[in-house]
Amino acid sequence: MRKVVIGVIGAGDSASDLDVETARRVGELIAREGWIVLTGGRDCGVMGAAADGAKEVAGSVTVGVLPSVDSEVAPSIDVAVFTDMGSGRNNVNVLSSDAVIACGVTGPGTLSEIALALKANKHVIVIGADRVAREFLARFSARFLSFVSSAEEAISAVKEIVRS
Amino acid sequence: MRKVVIGVIGAGDSASDLDVETARRVGELIAREGWIVLTGGRDCGVMGAAADGAKEVAGSVTVGVLPSVDSEVAPSIDVAVFTDMGSGRNNVNVLSSDAVIACGVTGPGTLSEIALALKANKHVIVIGADRVAREFLARFSARFLSFVSSAEEAISAVKEIVRS
Amino acid sequence: MRKVVIGVIGAGDSASDLDVETARRVGELIAREGWIVLTGGRDCGVMGAAADGAKEVAGSVTVGVLPSVDSEVAPSIDVAVFTDMGSGRNNVNVLSSDAVIACGVTGPGTLSEIALALKANKHVIVIGADRVAREFLARFSARFLSFVSSAEEAISAVKEIVRS
Amino acid sequence: MRKVVIGVIGAGDSASDLDVETARRVGELIAREGWIVLTGGRDCGVMGAAADGAKEVAGSVTVGVLPSVDSEVAPSIDVAVFTDMGSGRNNVNVLSSDAVIACGVTGPGTLSEIALALKANKHVIVIGADRVAREFLARFSARFLSFVSSAEEAISAVKEIVRS
Repeated sequence: MRKVVIGVIGAGDSASDLDVETARRVGELIAREGWIVLTGGRDCGVMGAAADGAKEVAGSVTVGVLPSVDSEVAPSIDVAVFTDMGSGRNNVNVLSSDAVIACGVTGPGTLSEIALALKANKHVIVIGADRVAREFLARFSARFLSFVSSAEEAISAVKEIVRS
Repeated sequence: MRKVVIGVIGAGDSASDLDVETARRVGELIAREGWIVLTGGRDCGVMGAAADGAKEVAGSVTVGVLPSVDSEVAPSIDVAVFTDMGSGRNNVNVLSSDAVIACGVTGPGTLSEIALALKANKHVIVIGADRVAREFLARFSARFLSFVSSAEEAISAVKEIVRS
Repeated sequence: MRKVVIGVIGAGDSASDLDVETARRVGELIAREGWIVLTGGRDCGVMGAAADGAKEVAGSVTVGVLPSVDSEVAPSIDVAVFTDMGSGRNNVNVLSSDAVIACGVTGPGTLSEIALALKANKHVIVIGADRVAREFLARFSARFLSFVSSAEEAISAVKEIVRS
Repeated sequence: MRKVVIGVIGAGDSASDLDVETARRVGELIAREGWIVLTGGRDCGVMGAAADGAKEVAGSVTVGVLPSVDSEVAPSIDVAVFTDMGSGRNNVNVLSSDAVIACGVTGPGTLSEIALALKANKHVIVIGADRVAREFLARFSARFLSFVSSAEEAISAVKEIVRS
């Protein structure tokens, strides 16, 4: 039976220490629920940390959807899908996730994934958005967008979405 | 010799009358410069209006990059490119444009294109963004993002980009 | 009003002199009909020659759908669409063409485009296929595949398709 | 540590009983090696049978790369990746596989995947190709294409590729 897939998105090389630590915790908590962690697959930032966190849980499965056949895959990725379609893969990531958790909103790649997810009516849970980010992003969806303050709150929000 | 291609993006079915009127004017002004208008190709909103505006100019060329083989193509599109990749085509649109003009920022599809353009270091000129939109979006690029108030100002900004 | 778009496919760097000469002639004849020539856009082989042939006709329009943002665009391409999706762009090429003309069947890229076109129920006219190629390819479509011996015959076949 | 991924391709709705039975056996043998089975993900033909075969092995992992968000996913797929890019997903399938096994060559979709795999220098092992198919396809790669007669021979061929 297919498992629930949760996408984890956020900055790559420019991720803050806080976002990386949050991502590691998010990945671990997703795996503890028996859900699959899906990321952009590269070996950096939020992507790398979320997969690392998941692999601390026995039996976890991590999926990376990569932009290029030449991308360096994070060592914690179990299944690598090579799209070779650059940022076009961002749409594949969100369409393949039952819900998406954003660890920060600090780069255009992450912003594109939030927007593509909302376009596809996928639930997006954003951790750590400040007032301006909340005010702006809330314009794009009343129903599919939530703001939370921690990895634990994000998982609680996903549980409600997955159950419904 | 290849012509300059300017992408025009904005809301589809939910576009405001003002955004549609701006888009028509933008399309016309782009065509007057001898540049190609590139849109998402569908027969609605900003997409449709920008192509309509361009076709009021003799000798203009309009290109539509469509999400689906079943998409209804705007009647003012000269060249239709069918990607059949849904919102994944948004990345193709921005990569194929020398610069992108956004007529409003009022739907997740448009937001995804702005973000994908900035990710690819493409210049984006946004017409009519309010204070919150400016404050938020400015975080994503100091160099490639401009805010203007009219179609004429947008064309002036593109001229500087194209010349440089 | 949208123009008819004819895709021209064939080998790139490894194209034979005969295939290149045929492609140049095909491009010219397509343009004489007032149709648009669509190619893979790169500056080599069948792609380059078909666009060159078209541009010998005044008022012609050539479209190139390119695999990468770094691809070198053939100088005879008027409108370049950058997919940045590698060989995934082959599907875009055939979906965007009203019919496809293959100048030879001598590389895996061309073979993939013939197959993707037939999968999408697009007419494919193959010039210069030998007995084995005909016998094998004929298995994949009774209705959408034709074999001819010259550029002129290919155009005649397309005329019947476009009219129907 | 990332596992080896073997793509299994072949006809969908029109698959022969023999190809389906071969695919089931191929899927099972791949899983017994501890490798991941990757298919087009839909609930029919070779795709469905290969995933079914794999899931008869405890601890197996099956990945489906689907053409549409509306595609019906085979019940034996563990991880579903939704590309929403139609046949454009065929390139993703082959790029994500360490080697590709074709159970028959009887539809244009399968032919496109064989061609795209060879274009990307991926090894393709074709089971059950007749004389004409072998003679034609052999033109496209001397190094990356093998013809075998059974699931067992296909797995032997993959073992040599994976080890090298």
